[in-house]
Amino acid sequence: MRKEMFDHEITILRDTFGRLLRRQAHTNLIKLINKTHPADLSIVFRYFNDDEQLQVFNIMKENEHTAEFLVELDDTLIANLLEDQSPERIAALLEQAPANDQSYILGTLEDEQAQSVIELLKTEEQEEIEELMGYPEDSAGAMMTTDVFTLYQESTCRDALKTLQDQEKAEMVFYLYITDEDDGLVGVASLRALATTPSDTLLKDIMIKRVHSVRPETDQEDVAQIVAQYNYLAVPVLDADGHLIGLVTVDDVVDVIREEATEDFLQMAGAGKDREILLKSSWENAKARLPWLFASWIGGIIAVSIIGRFEYMLENIIALAAFIPVIIGMGGNIGTQSSTIIVRGMATGRIKIGSEIKILMKEIRVGLILGGLYGLMLGVFAKFRFIDADPMLGVVVGLSIGSSMLIAVTVGTFIPMFLRKIDIDPAIATGPFVTTSIDILGVLLYFVIAGSLLAI
Amino acid sequence: MRKEMFDHEITILRDTFGRLLRRQAHTNLIKLINKTHPADLSIVFRYFNDDEQLQVFNIMKENEHTAEFLVELDDTLIANLLEDQSPERIAALLEQAPANDQSYILGTLEDEQAQSVIELLKTEEQEEIEELMGYPEDSAGAMMTTDVFTLYQESTCRDALKTLQDQEKAEMVFYLYITDEDDGLVGVASLRALATTPSDTLLKDIMIKRVHSVRPETDQEDVAQIVAQYNYLAVPVLDADGHLIGLVTVDDVVDVIREEATEDFLQMAGAGKDREILLKSSWENAKARLPWLFASWIGGIIAVSIIGRFEYMLENIIALAAFIPVIIGMGGNIGTQSSTIIVRGMATGRIKIGSEIKILMKEIRVGLILGGLYGLMLGVFAKFRFIDADPMLGVVVGLSIGSSMLIAVTVGTFIPMFLRKIDIDPAIATGPFVTTSIDILGVLLYFVIAGSLLAI
Repeated sequence: MRKEMFDHEITILRDTFGRLLRRQAHTNLIKLINKTHPADLSIVFRYFNDDEQLQVFNIMKENEHTAEFLVELDDTLIANLLEDQSPERIAALLEQAPANDQSYILGTLEDEQAQSVIELLKTEEQEEIEELMGYPEDSAGAMMTTDVFTLYQESTCRDALKTLQDQEKAEMVFYLYITDEDDGLVGVASLRALATTPSDTLLKDIMIKRVHSVRPETDQEDVAQIVAQYNYLAVPVLDADGHLIGLVTVDDVVDVIREEATEDFLQMAGAGKDREILLKSSWENAKARLPWLFASWIGGIIAVSIIGRFEYMLENIIALAAFIPVIIGMGGNIGTQSSTIIVRGMATGRIKIGSEIKILMKEIRVGLILGGLYGLMLGVFAKFRFIDADPMLGVVVGLSIGSSMLIAVTVGTFIPMFLRKIDIDPAIATGPFVTTSIDILGVLLYFVIAGSLLAI
Repeated sequence: MRKEMFDHEITILRDTFGRLLRRQAHTNLIKLINKTHPADLSIVFRYFNDDEQLQVFNIMKENEHTAEFLVELDDTLIANLLEDQSPERIAALLEQAPANDQSYILGTLEDEQAQSVIELLKTEEQEEIEELMGYPEDSAGAMMTTDVFTLYQESTCRDALKTLQDQEKAEMVFYLYITDEDDGLVGVASLRALATTPSDTLLKDIMIKRVHSVRPETDQEDVAQIVAQYNYLAVPVLDADGHLIGLVTVDDVVDVIREEATEDFLQMAGAGKDREILLKSSWENAKARLPWLFASWIGGIIAVSIIGRFEYMLENIIALAAFIPVIIGMGGNIGTQSSTIIVRGMATGRIKIGSEIKILMKEIRVGLILGGLYGLMLGVFAKFRFIDADPMLGVVVGLSIGSSMLIAVTVGTFIPMFLRKIDIDPAIATGPFVTTSIDILGVLLYFVIAGSLLAI
């Protein structure tokens, strides 16, 4: 219900923008832009065509609102919008954004354009951005906010409150990070603990000493795991000497969790890993999806050759051909079930190192149960449907579908586990890989079984 | 790297527990339990067998630490652990937990057991729990925390700070919610605004008046959408009169986002929607996966009948059989790509009502590009591989794979869009449904094309 309302509001906003754009009512457009939440504006932008996007963006002021809006936008749209903007305007906009957003926006630009923008910024900003852009993509360093401050453990709560009130930039203060004389992080205290303690208590007496922290190189998925598991609002990022250099906050983690899930979805289906594939052209779309289809095309060619070799069997018992789709189809589907359960189990931490064999055994049992059941059903069906055929035909197709399903659960479970073992993202094209393997193994098995049981 | 460390710590913890359990060293076990973070304890539990789980749980005190641990545990494990516990012990544990956790834990129990536990609680707790349990599963009402307080808009910042310091239970105070004389929510202010404003300023002068709120019936996915979009730490839940009755906090939203993604993954593969399927027995596992396999078995049977009808064609050109797997396989794979892109696009709000036709057209263009390419490649291959066959064989298989891929993108795009239109979760078994449709449509098309182009 609420969802509809939500969509409804966006639709109204979109229509209003459309009307004002058609009327070229610039004054009203500016008013509407200022009144609209940056996050809503970024959603409405998805509906505009390139020309409308540029028109709106060109009348936007170089203020904080516009900078926030830019960061909320899909990467593809940022790049499109900024492509033809002057470095001066981009630099003026960036000056309104915190360092991590600056480096994020610069990351969407072509290298040359990014460089000319950076040259226009203040030296200290340049240094900070270059440091942030030096961290690997999808790492804690690349997503952390650097507007942080620490408090010395021998300070009183009174001093801490005063420091806190002087912090202009640190908009989202969740925790107080407390250091020793060497500036190393030694503890953390909540705002509430600070507010409810007598004001001359020392920080070291109210702080919690066990702090989970990450390094700037830590992968964003691992940061998300920590935040999700311990219900944190922020995780401190420490350098090699234990000094606080930034914070990853929960609002960014929420985005990471959704993005990683989207990437896993697409990858598993062999559709690349570009979250914004819907915004791309048909050509780019086709290009992203081509490689894994090629792999399954090769698999198909191999299946053609296998069946070609057994042509003499088909010549004798033509009914054999009719069962090819169901045997490989059922195998493909149960194999996809297995690999999905495994890949997702790994992503959510439900499958830990060491429990693989147990899980593989369970999947094989499931394969035996379901393979046995559907094998029996198909065998009986074949017996009655092709009553004039070889009396063993039912046994052959029953055995074949059963073993194809059994092999499918094994392949579907083993492949993602093996990929993780050799440090490859287990989500990579598991889907196409499993179905293609079953296409090949399924038909091979089918004809081998048929060859040994039928009188040909 | 950090991930390994993380796993490493869990492994150490697990080994230590194992050693102490074997030695029956109860005193040391209790010490270890108390030292372990509830979230870590809940992970280690996944490795214990039923007996070890019970042993550890039975020596745990009925305190807040144990209550927090229980809530972090997977539903299946909670139910297993509490199954044979006395209502008295469960009630004693529940008294250590906030209302939403109480109703969550009770929700995992059998009705009868839950009822006898509820009867042991204080009357006011009973009422609150019954109210919470009355909200639909997966709604804002079911997940909200009810430990909330509001401030009157004519209060000063000084009064507000004092009220804040008196709040014992509201552990996670993120925002101050401000009401008018009728107790209706009229605004919100941040803790920082409060701390940095002169103390006799009125709340109404510092509050932000536009507050996003939800109703208790709002689906948790929509709540998550709001939190993710606006980077909120909490969303207020209002009753029909606009009174604040609870809060959904970001830490719960993080869990919802992961859980919904997991459910979507499993559903799309036709493997049910039980996030904890890995913890279930092989039988339960098979039962969850059986229905959609049955649907695809029926599809397979239909394909058998279709091919059976065209037996005379196979008798003439036996090579036709060899291409069945590649034609339906490529169709199935490209169709799964499409449906995955669409389902995920809907879940992340990238596909809004009204943009469906445009997206369908783009997918069809992608189908034409890739279908054309692979059709050409397969046609050429067929021509050279089966040099003695009908000269039109290459054209037939090329056309067939091309049109099977084109139909597949259309089906893969249309099905989830149609499901959403009629208010069914678009993720439901899209995978098996798409591949099964392609099995049927693909072979039908193949033989129809063959029949009209080949000399039979």
